[in-house]
Amino acid sequence: MKIIESKYVNFREVGTIKTLVVVGHPQLADSGTQQFLKVAAELPLVTWHPVSEPVAIEQEQQLLQQADRIILQFPLYWYSAPALLKNWLDQVLTRQFAYPAAGGNLVGKSLGIVVTLGSPARQFKAGGDEQFTISELMAPFQALANKLKMNYLPTFVVDQFGYQSETEKAKLLIDYQRYLTQAPLGHFKAKSDWLIEQLRLQLAVAPAEQQQQLNLILTQLQSNQDELDDLQANLKLVQDMEDD
Amino acid sequence: MKIIESKYVNFREVGTIKTLVVVGHPQLADSGTQQFLKVAAELPLVTWHPVSEPVAIEQEQQLLQQADRIILQFPLYWYSAPALLKNWLDQVLTRQFAYPAAGGNLVGKSLGIVVTLGSPARQFKAGGDEQFTISELMAPFQALANKLKMNYLPTFVVDQFGYQSETEKAKLLIDYQRYLTQAPLGHFKAKSDWLIEQLRLQLAVAPAEQQQQLNLILTQLQSNQDELDDLQANLKLVQDMEDD
Repeated sequence: MKIIESKYVNFREVGTIKTLVVVGHPQLADSGTQQFLKVAAELPLVTWHPVSEPVAIEQEQQLLQQADRIILQFPLYWYSAPALLKNWLDQVLTRQFAYPAAGGNLVGKSLGIVVTLGSPARQFKAGGDEQFTISELMAPFQALANKLKMNYLPTFVVDQFGYQSETEKAKLLIDYQRYLTQAPLGHFKAKSDWLIEQLRLQLAVAPAEQQQQLNLILTQLQSNQDELDDLQANLKLVQDMEDD
Repeated sequence: MKIIESKYVNFREVGTIKTLVVVGHPQLADSGTQQFLKVAAELPLVTWHPVSEPVAIEQEQQLLQQADRIILQFPLYWYSAPALLKNWLDQVLTRQFAYPAAGGNLVGKSLGIVVTLGSPARQFKAGGDEQFTISELMAPFQALANKLKMNYLPTFVVDQFGYQSETEKAKLLIDYQRYLTQAPLGHFKAKSDWLIEQLRLQLAVAPAEQQQQLNLILTQLQSNQDELDDLQANLKLVQDMEDD
């Protein structure tokens, strides 16, 4: 991974990230995977946007401009995106719109890939049936993010959805929702804040008998978080003193 | 490069390789690069085949079956093939036709990529403007070759054709013709044989005043080759004796 955490500089406060999910699937209605993900993506500030033809270039560009996080979501066809999505990219990302030296409309936004696999994820490595990692195969998208000065997110892989157990699907749902909405990944405080935010949303709509329980969890989490914040402040203080 | 020379096992004698050049360019007629390459590809046993839509799947599959060497030729659009060519791949390479466990119609054939660049080739490396090598960006095609049990050839890069000098274009022409028609690359005898073959073809159509000169070169080359063959035979003899 060539991602470094300090690159994530463009995010606003937790819970205010606008995400655009650009879905490129030639048989969208027939795909159980995509229907599952569509329901999972029904979240505040997330826009589910299936690609269709012909491409209305200016409208698409406006959608991109309004988003903080842009997700390209597709099934892997011959180790890259289906032609439908490639056509969308070729048409929408004009030099005038996207090149940093020209319009630079995507600079600082995040680019994520959600790729669904028909063959087992474990085979995507040197020596495996597919010989290449997903990261290697997604290099053209990473190069795109580099060119447009976007932050390239770790790719989100959906491994043979049809073979997943109910438990795996439940985990997939949570992980996918986090991928779409969570502030900079890999940061513990962000994870905790995200969870608190989600619990607050649940609390608002939960039946009365669950409210008390949810409130307990929420209080506990916030108290933990406050303790962590204190610890970090102290740690910083000690470090600063050592630097003197 | 993951190519190893012993993989090239499917070639016939020099001069009998049938090559199919699948050209995926959305504005083919307007491309000076492609028009130049088209003239260069006017060679025996080479079929120039521009992709168009809609795709006649069975006809395309027949063309593929008849070829020994399949070249995908395209301008780099956002670090991979234009949607036009991706659509062709998505449609023509059906599982039934291409998977080794099913039809396996491409097993043992060679797959080459000819990619034309709008930005300088020297920028395609870590630390360069593009950050990725062409080999890295072509990984999806290498994975395809791996899946279909094809021999993946080194990618042929055409570096900013519009900026090339006449001398560079002359070299490009020869290199390109060799890429399309030459027996397993990187082998000195194959290079020499190929040159002799090309000279013979020239000799047949050359004006009388050039024939003598061409004949001289041809004789010299053949004599060199005979000497080389002798040397190699002797070398083999010595090696065999040492092995005893």
